[in-house]
Amino acid sequence: MAAACVRLMTLKPIIHGTSSSTFLRPTSLKFRAYSTALMSPPSTAIFYQDHGPPDTVTKVVEMPPVEIKANDVCVKMLAAPINPSDINRIQGVYPVRPPVPAVGGYEGVGEVHSVGSAVNGLSPGDLVMASPPSPGTWQTHVVKDKSLWHIIDKGTPVEYAATVTINPLTALRMIEDYVDLKSGDAIVQNGATSMVGQCVIQLAKLRGIHTINIIRDRTGSDEAKEKLTKLGADEVYTESQLDVKNVKSLLGNVPEPALGFNCVGGNAASLVLKFLRQGGTMVTYGGMSKKPITVSTTAFIFKELSLKGFWLQKWISSDKTDECRKMTDYLLGLIREGKLKYDMELTPFNEFHTALDKSLGKLGSQPKQVIKF
Amino acid sequence: MAAACVRLMTLKPIIHGTSSSTFLRPTSLKFRAYSTALMSPPSTAIFYQDHGPPDTVTKVVEMPPVEIKANDVCVKMLAAPINPSDINRIQGVYPVRPPVPAVGGYEGVGEVHSVGSAVNGLSPGDLVMASPPSPGTWQTHVVKDKSLWHIIDKGTPVEYAATVTINPLTALRMIEDYVDLKSGDAIVQNGATSMVGQCVIQLAKLRGIHTINIIRDRTGSDEAKEKLTKLGADEVYTESQLDVKNVKSLLGNVPEPALGFNCVGGNAASLVLKFLRQGGTMVTYGGMSKKPITVSTTAFIFKELSLKGFWLQKWISSDKTDECRKMTDYLLGLIREGKLKYDMELTPFNEFHTALDKSLGKLGSQPKQVIKF
Repeated sequence: MAAACVRLMTLKPIIHGTSSSTFLRPTSLKFRAYSTALMSPPSTAIFYQDHGPPDTVTKVVEMPPVEIKANDVCVKMLAAPINPSDINRIQGVYPVRPPVPAVGGYEGVGEVHSVGSAVNGLSPGDLVMASPPSPGTWQTHVVKDKSLWHIIDKGTPVEYAATVTINPLTALRMIEDYVDLKSGDAIVQNGATSMVGQCVIQLAKLRGIHTINIIRDRTGSDEAKEKLTKLGADEVYTESQLDVKNVKSLLGNVPEPALGFNCVGGNAASLVLKFLRQGGTMVTYGGMSKKPITVSTTAFIFKELSLKGFWLQKWISSDKTDECRKMTDYLLGLIREGKLKYDMELTPFNEFHTALDKSLGKLGSQPKQVIKF
Repeated sequence: MAAACVRLMTLKPIIHGTSSSTFLRPTSLKFRAYSTALMSPPSTAIFYQDHGPPDTVTKVVEMPPVEIKANDVCVKMLAAPINPSDINRIQGVYPVRPPVPAVGGYEGVGEVHSVGSAVNGLSPGDLVMASPPSPGTWQTHVVKDKSLWHIIDKGTPVEYAATVTINPLTALRMIEDYVDLKSGDAIVQNGATSMVGQCVIQLAKLRGIHTINIIRDRTGSDEAKEKLTKLGADEVYTESQLDVKNVKSLLGNVPEPALGFNCVGGNAASLVLKFLRQGGTMVTYGGMSKKPITVSTTAFIFKELSLKGFWLQKWISSDKTDECRKMTDYLLGLIREGKLKYDMELTPFNEFHTALDKSLGKLGSQPKQVIKF
């Protein structure tokens, strides 16, 4: 999975200049031995030598051409997102991460540039995505084994192809895997404006499942409510609106939810728990507030709540490549049919550090940043 | 299930005197219509008119004889425990409780005194227990439908027969129902000196399962450790001994536990979570500290912990009478073989309010109180 990164290990980069103008030059000449072999173009990459604050440790570097071996495919990248897990990998706080030095990124889509001599079924010009996601997508050209690329319909908008595997797939798996929901049932979630949150609303709606959505109190919360309602949300509340004795009195015709999703923690998680029905399940997949979840013992004993977690990377790593691709194709189909959409901001690759600052929250609340190469 | 209590509803008691000398006299004469029918003896009972502090609202009353209908069995009670759930029922804070006025108690064992005309298979002198437990066992004579009594081996010590259904059965179900444990695996639990805790140690040991046990810091903790070790505990720690950076460094040869039991909450619950292995499950069945459980979002996502609750009364109410009795027989068999034992203090019925004070914690840490009639 980490072919590009393993090759990086043979490099001893020399870094010059500022983060946006830094280039890496190899001091090892190993790759010269491949000069008669099929080689990739040089690749401009977002590279980090050591873990640390992403806006400090990431540099734009010029990577030398690498050999395209018999089973390799060289892909000219078209788009790749900046996900919170990408940031945590660079910070060194993500439990599974490539060894440093490394190129950032994990999801992404591109066009086949050239293929190794033993590759069938993929040709230059094909639209392919890293599936399951794998490290090193923040660069103009990526060389990886053919098994790591999944061909997709050329009619797919690249920003969606670049982002479908982590957040929309998380939403889909969480809806499918924890509680046997039927049409007419309900889900409650916090962080509803997140990409996962937006997907939960739409994927639930397609199944006839109601959603109760909790968002932060902030400027623009009315617009956020309107947007989520247009996506199909049944109810949208800010946290302060739920500061009532009995949140269930707000349910109206929506049944008590059997399933809840939490990506925030703290009070926002407690609100999800309050909405859950007897025997309900809350699945945690994020912790944006950095606050823990607090639950009374009676909520476990007498309300019979179950609390679990979802970690997509773990799900994928359990040999689920085929299943992952099948789900991805299903989601991309919905996207092409206009049944699944979510907010993104496309940023040119040469403005990467602006997109990174936005992803780091340095410029206020921003939509998901997607790098366009 | 609540035959005796339903009959109480026809009474308008007149209460005189102090709690220990109070008698109830019926103002309704309905029962006189039964005077030619088979009648129970009068019953001395721990009665409460309204919910409230148990030491205030419970009175010793003389209940009039009741009719023993065709399918009824009248049992002369021999022993009944005071469980925390009994106290919560009287306080009115337990989610499922008999309507007031009511007689206290839920578990108990006795000797058949007389049977209705249609009763086969039970005869005067048989040892029977309320199984599944049902309300109203704190009285000298209980009349209930035959289906509510379970005949047991006369060689069973009554204090064990009186207490086997709630706490030991909770321990057994929690070991069996959540994680598929094999010999050599481990369980971690707090509140290890409780009756459930003592049973967990012994039932796990019988299955070759190790136990890591957490107890409070208090005078006598060394004696408690010694006692639990004799029962088969692998490791026993006070909470303060676990105030270390990495509790798992204390595991020695015991594997990381896949299953944890929490009956305390607060820090003691956090310690159980710290011991659990990747993907482990913590089952909460009590909340003695009255403090909530606090869990980081990463513990759910990356450590993949699951948190659940166990409520025996719910388990039993899902039509599990036969299974409940089978489990009870298994546990009573272990008790008769000397393989399962736990601390209790037997108190004569006429000292009920002393036993109640002990159960309420007014006299310091005390063993489980069992009323002997």
